Amino acid sequence: MAKRSNIGAVIHGVDDMRMEQVPIPTPRDNEVLLEIDCVGICGSDVHVLSHGGFGEYVLKKPMVIGHESSGVVIGVGKGVKRLKVGDRVALEPAIGCKVCKLCKAGRYNLCPDGIYSATPPIHGSLQNYYTHPEDCCFKLPPNVTMEEGSLLEPLAVGVHSCRIANVQLGSSVLVLGAGPIGMVSILVAKAMGAAKVCVIDLVQSKLDIAKEIGADFTLQIQKGDKEDNIVKKIHGLMGCAPDIAIECTGAEPCVRLAILATELGGVVTMVGIGNTNMNLPITIALVREVEIRSGFRYANAYPAALAMVANGTIDATRLITHHFNLEDSVEAFKTARYGLGDAIKVMIHCQPRNKNNPVKKL
Amino acid sequence: MAKRSNIGAVIHGVDDMRMEQVPIPTPRDNEVLLEIDCVGICGSDVHVLSHGGFGEYVLKKPMVIGHESSGVVIGVGKGVKRLKVGDRVALEPAIGCKVCKLCKAGRYNLCPDGIYSATPPIHGSLQNYYTHPEDCCFKLPPNVTMEEGSLLEPLAVGVHSCRIANVQLGSSVLVLGAGPIGMVSILVAKAMGAAKVCVIDLVQSKLDIAKEIGADFTLQIQKGDKEDNIVKKIHGLMGCAPDIAIECTGAEPCVRLAILATELGGVVTMVGIGNTNMNLPITIALVREVEIRSGFRYANAYPAALAMVANGTIDATRLITHHFNLEDSVEAFKTARYGLGDAIKVMIHCQPRNKNNPVKKL
Amino acid sequence: MAKRSNIGAVIHGVDDMRMEQVPIPTPRDNEVLLEIDCVGICGSDVHVLSHGGFGEYVLKKPMVIGHESSGVVIGVGKGVKRLKVGDRVALEPAIGCKVCKLCKAGRYNLCPDGIYSATPPIHGSLQNYYTHPEDCCFKLPPNVTMEEGSLLEPLAVGVHSCRIANVQLGSSVLVLGAGPIGMVSILVAKAMGAAKVCVIDLVQSKLDIAKEIGADFTLQIQKGDKEDNIVKKIHGLMGCAPDIAIECTGAEPCVRLAILATELGGVVTMVGIGNTNMNLPITIALVREVEIRSGFRYANAYPAALAMVANGTIDATRLITHHFNLEDSVEAFKTARYGLGDAIKVMIHCQPRNKNNPVKKL
Amino acid sequence: MAKRSNIGAVIHGVDDMRMEQVPIPTPRDNEVLLEIDCVGICGSDVHVLSHGGFGEYVLKKPMVIGHESSGVVIGVGKGVKRLKVGDRVALEPAIGCKVCKLCKAGRYNLCPDGIYSATPPIHGSLQNYYTHPEDCCFKLPPNVTMEEGSLLEPLAVGVHSCRIANVQLGSSVLVLGAGPIGMVSILVAKAMGAAKVCVIDLVQSKLDIAKEIGADFTLQIQKGDKEDNIVKKIHGLMGCAPDIAIECTGAEPCVRLAILATELGGVVTMVGIGNTNMNLPITIALVREVEIRSGFRYANAYPAALAMVANGTIDATRLITHHFNLEDSVEAFKTARYGLGDAIKVMIHCQPRNKNNPVKKL
Repeated sequence: MAKRSNIGAVIHGVDDMRMEQVPIPTPRDNEVLLEIDCVGICGSDVHVLSHGGFGEYVLKKPMVIGHESSGVVIGVGKGVKRLKVGDRVALEPAIGCKVCKLCKAGRYNLCPDGIYSATPPIHGSLQNYYTHPEDCCFKLPPNVTMEEGSLLEPLAVGVHSCRIANVQLGSSVLVLGAGPIGMVSILVAKAMGAAKVCVIDLVQSKLDIAKEIGADFTLQIQKGDKEDNIVKKIHGLMGCAPDIAIECTGAEPCVRLAILATELGGVVTMVGIGNTNMNLPITIALVREVEIRSGFRYANAYPAALAMVANGTIDATRLITHHFNLEDSVEAFKTARYGLGDAIKVMIHCQPRNKNNPVKKL
Repeated sequence: MAKRSNIGAVIHGVDDMRMEQVPIPTPRDNEVLLEIDCVGICGSDVHVLSHGGFGEYVLKKPMVIGHESSGVVIGVGKGVKRLKVGDRVALEPAIGCKVCKLCKAGRYNLCPDGIYSATPPIHGSLQNYYTHPEDCCFKLPPNVTMEEGSLLEPLAVGVHSCRIANVQLGSSVLVLGAGPIGMVSILVAKAMGAAKVCVIDLVQSKLDIAKEIGADFTLQIQKGDKEDNIVKKIHGLMGCAPDIAIECTGAEPCVRLAILATELGGVVTMVGIGNTNMNLPITIALVREVEIRSGFRYANAYPAALAMVANGTIDATRLITHHFNLEDSVEAFKTARYGLGDAIKVMIHCQPRNKNNPVKKL
Repeated sequence: MAKRSNIGAVIHGVDDMRMEQVPIPTPRDNEVLLEIDCVGICGSDVHVLSHGGFGEYVLKKPMVIGHESSGVVIGVGKGVKRLKVGDRVALEPAIGCKVCKLCKAGRYNLCPDGIYSATPPIHGSLQNYYTHPEDCCFKLPPNVTMEEGSLLEPLAVGVHSCRIANVQLGSSVLVLGAGPIGMVSILVAKAMGAAKVCVIDLVQSKLDIAKEIGADFTLQIQKGDKEDNIVKKIHGLMGCAPDIAIECTGAEPCVRLAILATELGGVVTMVGIGNTNMNLPITIALVREVEIRSGFRYANAYPAALAMVANGTIDATRLITHHFNLEDSVEAFKTARYGLGDAIKVMIHCQPRNKNNPVKKL
Repeated sequence: MAKRSNIGAVIHGVDDMRMEQVPIPTPRDNEVLLEIDCVGICGSDVHVLSHGGFGEYVLKKPMVIGHESSGVVIGVGKGVKRLKVGDRVALEPAIGCKVCKLCKAGRYNLCPDGIYSATPPIHGSLQNYYTHPEDCCFKLPPNVTMEEGSLLEPLAVGVHSCRIANVQLGSSVLVLGAGPIGMVSILVAKAMGAAKVCVIDLVQSKLDIAKEIGADFTLQIQKGDKEDNIVKKIHGLMGCAPDIAIECTGAEPCVRLAILATELGGVVTMVGIGNTNMNLPITIALVREVEIRSGFRYANAYPAALAMVANGTIDATRLITHHFNLEDSVEAFKTARYGLGDAIKVMIHCQPRNKNNPVKKL
């Protein structure tokens, strides 16, 4: 294994990503060694590059980026039981401590001692070789491609947010924002039986794709539109006030809209992260018992996401608008950051495309 | 209105159904008068005819049968607000007292003072004219046919049982019995995002239709098969133990199978009604924390069923195997009772087919 | 019955309450006629007097005030089944339409067509005689006094808010505000098994009573205290971050504190109504999955409140600080409005105290 | 540490328990070494002695028994962070694998790879020295005695069963069986706010203690009593059908009673383990939507149990009827097995009583 070359996308600081040799890690107990295949770029990855971290997680030394990944097992550490060399897997980047009260209660996404690939200072997986705990690797069946494996990560966000929002058969759902998280929320909400999904965004081209993947209604809004008017338009389009709003922008005007538009007794779920403080019509929520919940990452969501991709109910590949090879990661990040070419999801390939797909699909 | 003729299917006693003139009722406060269009035959209707009632509900005087109905509003009582003459509606046959603790808590299907169309002594809707409370009538949009309106009743059973069973995105579901209730459970479970649905039955022709409408796996079993073997086959087919079993037969061997096959921490939902007492492997449920729940009729399920039919997610029309006119109701009941011609759902038409469908479909 | 005199506390406009003769109502179907005994004054009653209504409910004609009441049945309308003349009852002032989807789902407190005693334009019960639906009257056992019957109303608010907050055995609960609603939240949270309840308020005398009725910790805060410091003090006192915060003030700084102080994955429940818009640290809630729920009035809460008063677990009588006779209602309202004499709950008696208590207690 | 003597209660086979020297274990990573103080005897311990195991867990080699234990930390393994030498702790005997889907979802009591102290072949804690994972040790505050620490184990069973049963403020609860598990169910149900708890048993002396610790009603039944009569008596005593039944006997007649007595829409929770198959009135459950749930051991229940003991809400010490020293364990087991001297909970002391209690209590 010593002769392998391992190229990683290393962020050294703000706007300073370098493709460079990094050490090939050795799997510890209960870990597997992976040859990474596909890595999608997430908004949070771009944020680390553009801001040097996020929130309290500030880059203090160079870190490999990337956390929406799939790969092939090429080595196993002591104690690994389920996986073996050759298995194709998707990597869940969230790793809880497993012993705190939140982990023990099944909410490991909130673990205060948990780590997360590519959240400083933990190295991410945009590199040729990576080690990961066996229990955070999900084996892909032959008909699921490596790209789809990589897309399980944003899909897991969608699964979590729709679960938190309590999407049910027959629900009417308003999705605010048609970026990647809005898109996966649409896909998952429809798969859970939402009767009506309405999506709003500033950009018509995104709304067109939203419609293509299953949204029933779309509404282009403009900065400065009066909120009462937008609410009226949403209710008119949907024929009702939505039971549920899933807020994927993090923008104060959208959080306000979510609260104002939602039906009596309904649920607003916040997923998009924005300013710390916002001016919100909270008393409108109170007297209507509209709950304001939040979805932070995900927990126990990969199995459902994988099952629905495997059986063909959810197809997220439409979201991939651009492909790059590992060595072109800097270009890939530029595309994602500035939304070049109407980019939604940018996929980076560390292996020749389709190489590891038993069922060739592309 | 006096000159109208009202023919009803009146059950006078065991095996004694007569088509005869019955009075046209007058809508009371908050009721509408309906011209009935379609009425499906339910197993419980057949049971009333063959046994003179069910459980504690025994026929004491002649009663019009039928409760899976759709119709057109032709009159409104005092206090009716939402509906107007000409509206096409589906009738929910369950009417709670609205003031007991169960009604007030939203579980009106359990109301001890509730009534239910065609449960003795309450007249059913297999007649030309019928009155019903406005709040139990659900207006059909133009693209939903009267037959589909009638099918909302069994679909509501499916919605209720799948809700009770807590079917989730990615669930694996075992359905025991491929009769009408098994079929609607399949349709609803898939619409809720079940990843894998496996159906078992004694009759291959039913399993073929189950597959056609969405079941992922089917297993024909035979009386006398050893239960351990059947469980093994189910687990083999599904690639896992099901999270959920929905028991639609009421047969002791199937209730046993449901308990034995279900995954640790899973849920068995009983819907099919059988013998009062059964010999069950209850301790297997206990040490595995398999919950045994029950779905009795439905509550608050029509809106979801209607929404999913209206948006095309659920198509239950494949279940209709036979059509009869009102005057041939006796023949229709014979077909349903003996499963003639591989009957699944038998539909009776009180109006010319398609007459009341704005979007002609048949 | 014609010769009876009926004195009511009629609000004619802002700061204009008059004690005057009002008609004795006649019970309609399913209603009972009550001789009112006790009526507590609620903050919302005071608000109607001081502002001429609240929110969209504006006084347009004179209205009898009062909605925390108990009385004795002296007449029954048609259809009344459960109650009879002589029954002592507590009146639940919320009356849903019983047919909308929210009523049918058990959330009648959100019914858009519901009415509520003393919410304009519906007359309240601070008068000698009053009619009310039978299903909104709860029969008091002999050991529950008429005053306790009247206190069921604020207790029901506490039950609802603690249910919404999901107080569990072992929960740690922060209550913000030691007014009547804060007090009933303490009583109910402890009865539900909360391990630690901490209460904060500006006024030490209220905190002293909070401690007396069961609060484990109290913290007097002052306007202008830094929120981080208050949070630290709360965590220090409780030995942990609270799982749950129940916000009973409606003041923006307190809603902020509730969000900031609550444990990862916890729940903030808003009950106190304040300004429409507030500036809130919503992203702190998001990344910690702290849910922001609301309790608006109550639904299905009277039976639990009554059961716990009847068995002696909850004693709310300590909250009554002042007693007045019906004819002194204007004085009573002044006491409640300005908190004279450290008033918490002011009770108005339409009958001689203790007259209707089979078990004499006062 | 080498010179310490470690005496353990070793079961060699059916009816063959020997007090003998056993090795002092060395704490592995994340484990602590404990000097055991108190160990209660559980029915399952007795069953291992009398039957050589239970279910599929059969004794194949000598095993130390005991799992209701408290002790003092005298050594820490690598990675231990929270605990230190001198800490007094209660030991939760259930240890999940932490990586299966059930562990990750917070249901580690169902972990198929989990282990449990004194379930063959895992050694139990009825010995002087024992090692245990840090995350399964709960630090006792000074006012909680070592005996109370030991009682947290049965209390955790009560917490779990009452949670599964969904005991709420105002619930009416029927407890079947007044053995230790019935007793802790009473204690916990009352602490959760149950309004009425009724207990039935064959033995009046047990019912007397049940009443002493908080049961509102008791009913002595006799083998051969007609079930309808017993149900009537229960409903008469309680003034209602119970919302919840907690079955703690494992006897078929009691499971039947639980189903028959429970209110429409209520919950039966099975805790007592009996015969694999039982003849049950399952259709009575179905048409009344009575759920049959199960509580197997517990998960995440120690913190709540400890909190309520620490704040004085729950006092389980009344259940301890007998005390023995470690060397008299054989006698202690005889007392527990045959219920000598009306034994309920038999406590074994590995240390002088009260030695490790900072607040001396006994």
